[in-house]
Amino acid sequence: MSNKQLDELRDQLDKVNLSLLEQINERARLVKEIGELKREQGIARFDPVRERSMLDLIATNNQGPFETATLQHLFKQIFKASLELQEEDNSKALLV
Amino acid sequence: MSNKQLDELRDQLDKVNLSLLEQINERARLVKEIGELKREQGIARFDPVRERSMLDLIATNNQGPFETATLQHLFKQIFKASLELQEEDNSKALLV
Repeated sequence: MSNKQLDELRDQLDKVNLSLLEQINERARLVKEIGELKREQGIARFDPVRERSMLDLIATNNQGPFETATLQHLFKQIFKASLELQEEDNSKALLV
Repeated sequence: MSNKQLDELRDQLDKVNLSLLEQINERARLVKEIGELKREQGIARFDPVRERSMLDLIATNNQGPFETATLQHLFKQIFKASLELQEEDNSKALLV
């Protein structure tokens, strides 16, 4: 086993990191759009039923190696950050 | 604005969630492979310099809407979960 192999795996990991970065930001853009739509319709932004259904989707489609509980924990962190992003937008709108 | 629009955005969000799920698991597979390689080479698995360089990569490539600090926090959670996955593998190996 050479360090060339390690370097190659790290290059692959960097590509996955960048792809994750893009997808997480793409997700944030969608959540912002959904938040604006909900504001216009006067619907509450936080929807526990919808959050549950997204967590179920993760459980159903998880092929590992991560345990479903670990993934759901990570996704909850992403949900939380997205909700905070919506709230920031809201505060900014109130200041205008 | 109709609920059809909301449903469409939610469908898109589900697709992004599934793509994130795949990428996070793909990342875990790579990290496991790197962990095995490092074990064979007798290199310490946790490498703070490498972690720093991955966080810098996020900072350099972030185009928003998430703040870099938020993304780095999310990635640290992913790193932590990946490291725990390596450690589990290690404990299992010791039990064999």
